[in-house]
Amino acid sequence: MVTVCRKLKKLADDDPRRVLHSFKVGIALTIVSTLYYVTPVFKGFGTSTIWAVLTVVLILEFTVGGTLTKGLNRAVATLLAAALGMGAHHIAILAGDKGEVILLGFFIFIVAVIATFLRFMPEIKKRYDYGVMIFMLTFSLVGISSFRDHETFMLAYKRLLTIAIGVAIALVVSVLVLPVWAGEELHMLTGANLEKLANFLEGLGALYFGEKVRVDEMKIKALLQSYKSVLNTKATEDSLANLARWEPPHGRFLFCHPWKQYLKISSISRRFACLVEALSSYISRSESQVATELEKHGNIIEACKEICKESMNAMTVMAASIRAMTKLSGSKQHMAAAKEATNRLKISLLEEGLLLRETLQTCTIVSLLLEIVS
Amino acid sequence: MVTVCRKLKKLADDDPRRVLHSFKVGIALTIVSTLYYVTPVFKGFGTSTIWAVLTVVLILEFTVGGTLTKGLNRAVATLLAAALGMGAHHIAILAGDKGEVILLGFFIFIVAVIATFLRFMPEIKKRYDYGVMIFMLTFSLVGISSFRDHETFMLAYKRLLTIAIGVAIALVVSVLVLPVWAGEELHMLTGANLEKLANFLEGLGALYFGEKVRVDEMKIKALLQSYKSVLNTKATEDSLANLARWEPPHGRFLFCHPWKQYLKISSISRRFACLVEALSSYISRSESQVATELEKHGNIIEACKEICKESMNAMTVMAASIRAMTKLSGSKQHMAAAKEATNRLKISLLEEGLLLRETLQTCTIVSLLLEIVS
Repeated sequence: MVTVCRKLKKLADDDPRRVLHSFKVGIALTIVSTLYYVTPVFKGFGTSTIWAVLTVVLILEFTVGGTLTKGLNRAVATLLAAALGMGAHHIAILAGDKGEVILLGFFIFIVAVIATFLRFMPEIKKRYDYGVMIFMLTFSLVGISSFRDHETFMLAYKRLLTIAIGVAIALVVSVLVLPVWAGEELHMLTGANLEKLANFLEGLGALYFGEKVRVDEMKIKALLQSYKSVLNTKATEDSLANLARWEPPHGRFLFCHPWKQYLKISSISRRFACLVEALSSYISRSESQVATELEKHGNIIEACKEICKESMNAMTVMAASIRAMTKLSGSKQHMAAAKEATNRLKISLLEEGLLLRETLQTCTIVSLLLEIVS
Repeated sequence: MVTVCRKLKKLADDDPRRVLHSFKVGIALTIVSTLYYVTPVFKGFGTSTIWAVLTVVLILEFTVGGTLTKGLNRAVATLLAAALGMGAHHIAILAGDKGEVILLGFFIFIVAVIATFLRFMPEIKKRYDYGVMIFMLTFSLVGISSFRDHETFMLAYKRLLTIAIGVAIALVVSVLVLPVWAGEELHMLTGANLEKLANFLEGLGALYFGEKVRVDEMKIKALLQSYKSVLNTKATEDSLANLARWEPPHGRFLFCHPWKQYLKISSISRRFACLVEALSSYISRSESQVATELEKHGNIIEACKEICKESMNAMTVMAASIRAMTKLSGSKQHMAAAKEATNRLKISLLEEGLLLRETLQTCTIVSLLLEIVS
């Protein structure tokens, strides 16, 4: 019990917006349930009011983009399905009492097969999965209930209206009460990923090349590990970028904000993290050897230290400029310094007689291959 | 239109079980709608029948594990929420007419806040997300409608029964009509990932070390690319392993089948793929140089070729033995051969005077660092 409470507290501390979101759902649900308590409204809609409650619970997501996507999907799909379902009902009644059952059953079967298959399409799965499911659901419900209750039109109309009310309430709460924007999440995540990679470079410089760091020794190992989460962010980033496209402009995120560019940065970050993973697994295999071996070559250590420091600085500047949405400045000089250090490193390698520049490639390939096999 | 049709055809060709699943949904929906058409059954349940339809559409997933998880979540959550909802109703009516509204509203608000917050817990999100949502939904519906309709007990009872019928129909169709098991999917995916990594080694051997291959030159580049999908399978594998645990024993997959071991193999495969990515990006940067440089060192090429071949063979054997669920045999000798070739390679490196074994580490670290920076 105590551990559960501690976990819950940590969840809340890590991101207080989670508590906020929980209260937002509570507020939205309270608003929609007053619809039921206030008698005049209830008299108009009857039991259809439950659709408004259902809608609020189902579509109110953590981000504005999520709520908007689900809400639009639900509203449009219900509208289309209700129209088509009523069309199917009108065709079916032409076939007489027995024919009606068979025709309606046939229509529902066909719609279910086609809709389910469409959900396998990546383009549809990515954006309209929920809509297609709701379409299939509503079509079946309208089709089936039209057989018993010939007031299909009123049923469909009431359902549509209550769902629209549900969507409206969910959207208003989502946008007006301290909104969480998917675009901003993506924005922050992209910056955070760059920072984690910069952390690795900082830890590397501290542990192997004697660079002085901001944090104490205990935290260096943590710095060296933080890149790992960058490797698995693809799914989150893709879905956030997808939701961000639906969001209206807000703050400094305008229409046609370049969301695709974020995905490009992320994909480069992931490749970077892969190289880091290779380097890290190579180092951790023979840590003490590496340290003693490196000590022999002062110049190389010096150059590596410089490279780590400058690229770390460049990445920190990039991350900061992404976060602040300012034009990139200052990272160029760090990159130039890193490049200069790279050249110094190459010269040192030649001077120390360690290897010719051409053979450096061979060794790297060979040693990576050895690492893969081991 | 033509491209869409072609895409749909490709989807069906890639995995014919997708078409099958679509028909399964159609069949389940037809079965549940006959409930509505057959008058005696309809008379018993009234409009509650729609919950059976809803349930079938919402819980029938591609895999048996998916259907089972969602079905159990839905059934148990509805049962609990209905019981608690009725309890709340009985407490609320004690407070008089006005007090009832306020108390019910308060209960619904509290349940919504707590349930929404619990959904952020990773342990709950992974397995019970759907259940918690349904709990919140059902509690609100029972709570709200109990205010108007004092026959709450009958409402809850009917809902429970129709949902149970929906779950039963979905499960029967999912298990009996050519089932797709999540466990088997995970099993095949694990094998396929190993094969993709073996493909890379084959392509590498063919392109740089002159190894003869099964396929024509055109396909070598494809072999070298196929590892990329291994990098991003974590989410799929985690969710499949999660669903697999719910599935009853079937075929050669018994109770307590070691699903966690699959995740371990996958995580090793992903690390392997990361190293491959590093090697691959290193090679592709200076392809022609690498080739001419390597040509100078016959012994090294010979040893690398051997390493590629033997580790490729070992991995193919492993993948095949996972797929066939047989005890691993034959891979040891390939691994031994690869290790021997590794030793030969190290000797060749010394003989060619390229570098001392100790400095190999330094160069690798240095060149990976250079690669990261560039």
